[in-house]
Amino acid sequence: ITEGKNETLQHLLEEVHYADVAELITELETDEAIYLIKLLENDVSSDVIAELDEDDRENILKGLSSKEIAEELDELDTDDAADIIGELSEKQKEEVIAHLDDVEHAKEIVELLRYDEDTAGGLMAKELVKVNENWNVLTCVKEMRAQAEEVTRVHSIYVVDDNDILKGRLSLKDLLTTSTRSPITDVFIKNVDSVNVHEAADEVAKIMQKYDLEAIPVVDEIGRLVGRITIDDIVDVIKEEAEKDYQMAAGISKDVEADDTILELTKARLPWLVLALFGGFVSVSILGGFSEAMDNYPVLFFFTPLIAAMAGNVGVQSSAIIVQGLANDSLRGSLFKRLIKEVLQSLLNGFVLAALLMSAGMFFLGFQFKVGLTVAISLISVIIIASIIGTFVPIILDKRGIDPALATGPFITTSNDIFGILIYFLIAKLILGF
Amino acid sequence: ITEGKNETLQHLLEEVHYADVAELITELETDEAIYLIKLLENDVSSDVIAELDEDDRENILKGLSSKEIAEELDELDTDDAADIIGELSEKQKEEVIAHLDDVEHAKEIVELLRYDEDTAGGLMAKELVKVNENWNVLTCVKEMRAQAEEVTRVHSIYVVDDNDILKGRLSLKDLLTTSTRSPITDVFIKNVDSVNVHEAADEVAKIMQKYDLEAIPVVDEIGRLVGRITIDDIVDVIKEEAEKDYQMAAGISKDVEADDTILELTKARLPWLVLALFGGFVSVSILGGFSEAMDNYPVLFFFTPLIAAMAGNVGVQSSAIIVQGLANDSLRGSLFKRLIKEVLQSLLNGFVLAALLMSAGMFFLGFQFKVGLTVAISLISVIIIASIIGTFVPIILDKRGIDPALATGPFITTSNDIFGILIYFLIAKLILGF
Repeated sequence: ITEGKNETLQHLLEEVHYADVAELITELETDEAIYLIKLLENDVSSDVIAELDEDDRENILKGLSSKEIAEELDELDTDDAADIIGELSEKQKEEVIAHLDDVEHAKEIVELLRYDEDTAGGLMAKELVKVNENWNVLTCVKEMRAQAEEVTRVHSIYVVDDNDILKGRLSLKDLLTTSTRSPITDVFIKNVDSVNVHEAADEVAKIMQKYDLEAIPVVDEIGRLVGRITIDDIVDVIKEEAEKDYQMAAGISKDVEADDTILELTKARLPWLVLALFGGFVSVSILGGFSEAMDNYPVLFFFTPLIAAMAGNVGVQSSAIIVQGLANDSLRGSLFKRLIKEVLQSLLNGFVLAALLMSAGMFFLGFQFKVGLTVAISLISVIIIASIIGTFVPIILDKRGIDPALATGPFITTSNDIFGILIYFLIAKLILGF
Repeated sequence: ITEGKNETLQHLLEEVHYADVAELITELETDEAIYLIKLLENDVSSDVIAELDEDDRENILKGLSSKEIAEELDELDTDDAADIIGELSEKQKEEVIAHLDDVEHAKEIVELLRYDEDTAGGLMAKELVKVNENWNVLTCVKEMRAQAEEVTRVHSIYVVDDNDILKGRLSLKDLLTTSTRSPITDVFIKNVDSVNVHEAADEVAKIMQKYDLEAIPVVDEIGRLVGRITIDDIVDVIKEEAEKDYQMAAGISKDVEADDTILELTKARLPWLVLALFGGFVSVSILGGFSEAMDNYPVLFFFTPLIAAMAGNVGVQSSAIIVQGLANDSLRGSLFKRLIKEVLQSLLNGFVLAALLMSAGMFFLGFQFKVGLTVAISLISVIIIASIIGTFVPIILDKRGIDPALATGPFITTSNDIFGILIYFLIAKLILGF
């Protein structure tokens, strides 16, 4: 398609939503994509660029000059513009900022660049509608019209005093339903939730979800209104958080995607596999240490994968339940109670599984009673211990400020394999006395 | 606290946000919670009830009469009211609906009950602001004021024709900035995204995220406006979806929480453990079938947990990457290319790990070269096969309409364990010839 017919193309893309154009662009070769971006009006192409995946965007921005990038950013909201500038190299960052046409806009973007990505400051945009508490409804509506030009979507109107301190909010609904002469002080809602600019992004997400907010004002240390966060940015935070947990559980260390290069994928996966390999060596050594059992009870060695797998599965189940409880702030009650509960539950699971194992093992596979008993007792012990480790490791990690989702990954699975095998052979040695 | 001082309590709770009251209530005994709910004004207590977890709500509603429940529901938006009624028994459902004061409201709730929970119809609320395309801005503002009374948050104003067919939308911003005499036809935006009432909830979530929408109108088969879905409901869909995937990966079959009863937790966990146990039996049989190897190469049996663990880890990694790609609609390119890529990547991982294994095994653990080679070759083969299974099982499940996240759970891990051990011993038999 990209062979000349510019006008037809322009005409064709005019009607298409920018999110669809962005999707189309990811399917093109980089030079075709750059060509298309340059063809589009800046107000569309900027949205397309903001919508792209980080990797795709990097490729396309490489094909644009600093001036061209600045032209795109002039069209974007401050939060999206700051995110994109944040991805550039230090040198290009300065060049692009120098090329921004709108000085106010540039100043705001530079301010946003100061904040850490994972804080309220990193999420917020400077675009908002604010009114002074001393105005009346009429001045307010006039001012709002002027301000609203710059703001894509008006969520709430924030009320500030002369020092820009956040005092409350005003709903569009109230504004529509009150006389134009009433002073703002009589109309506005004094109770307004806000977050500090240094609040962690996931905390902001929790607050906005709990109170069902669609936008939240951000204030600095002394309560001055500095920006606002909207729910669509929070949706991204929630999704990323969930994806990170999921990847950790699966043993993938960086944020990778199926379409990344083989080298990137390997970098994300290999470290965990090496860890698992070393865990495997430990179990090899343990088994080697019990090799004298091979003479009398070779059958014991057939059960090691079963015991290891059960330990791993039980541990991951326990951890996953706790990790979700921590993520939703829904864990209550004392640690001791939780311990008792986990042990009781493991006993229940353990007895059912051990009974199945004994009956299947003795009737169908024809093992000795003593061996069956050994494996069954080991199974129950392993389940109890794996579930205790699975429950308490995430709690301890969380208390130390480490992401508890780490506990659902290969690290714990590998440890549980090792503990499981060790316990199994210790119990076997006790009962069978080899 | 709940020993008499009603007025003090009422006064105390007046200032508290309903989400905080809901949190407080989950910490109380059920009878105290019911006492507190009855003490609160209906407009607060209804929000509190809607905010509660399903289990907690069930307990509290048991303590209220059908009439009391109806009084609470009268205060709620139709979508929340319908969700709560949906949780009641058939008999109580009818009683509560009969007790609803507002007939219009009752009719709308009954309509919503018809739709499946996981569709647009199950998510939508009937509360919305709509105007006729033939009105002018002044009539429109008047009508909106009346309608807006019932709607908690005005997102968009939808424009319909005389037959209630959705024609477009109107932004509050535009309404604020145009003359009161202009006809609506001149002002409204004709291009409006909407979803069909039977669209799946996760599709709605994808659409709203892609186009960054905060609310979307829902239409029936012939295009009539029947409701609207807001982003906060979509946030819940996204979170539930992510939690479900995570739980599936961890081998938990129902939506359980850490604070559920032991029996509920066991019901969610035991089926997967039984599955893993049977998988374990299969590996016991396989190992038993190769027991003749024990005479000459007992050391082979020490490596089974290592091989099984590597197969499990690699499989889960591959599946998790594909499951996330499917969830984000970001998988591109042919299946054959994906196969080649997965094999190349596995070869890379496999060679690194095999080299580590050979050097560690021979230098530190002192195994024979032939045994080391056998284990190393098996490791590479197992990694390749596990990653192919891990990649294609979720793709196949997805094509058949089954949730691909199932593939990251114990089912695939267990299968990979079995395949891994089988391949390992087959290769050992080939090389060592026992």
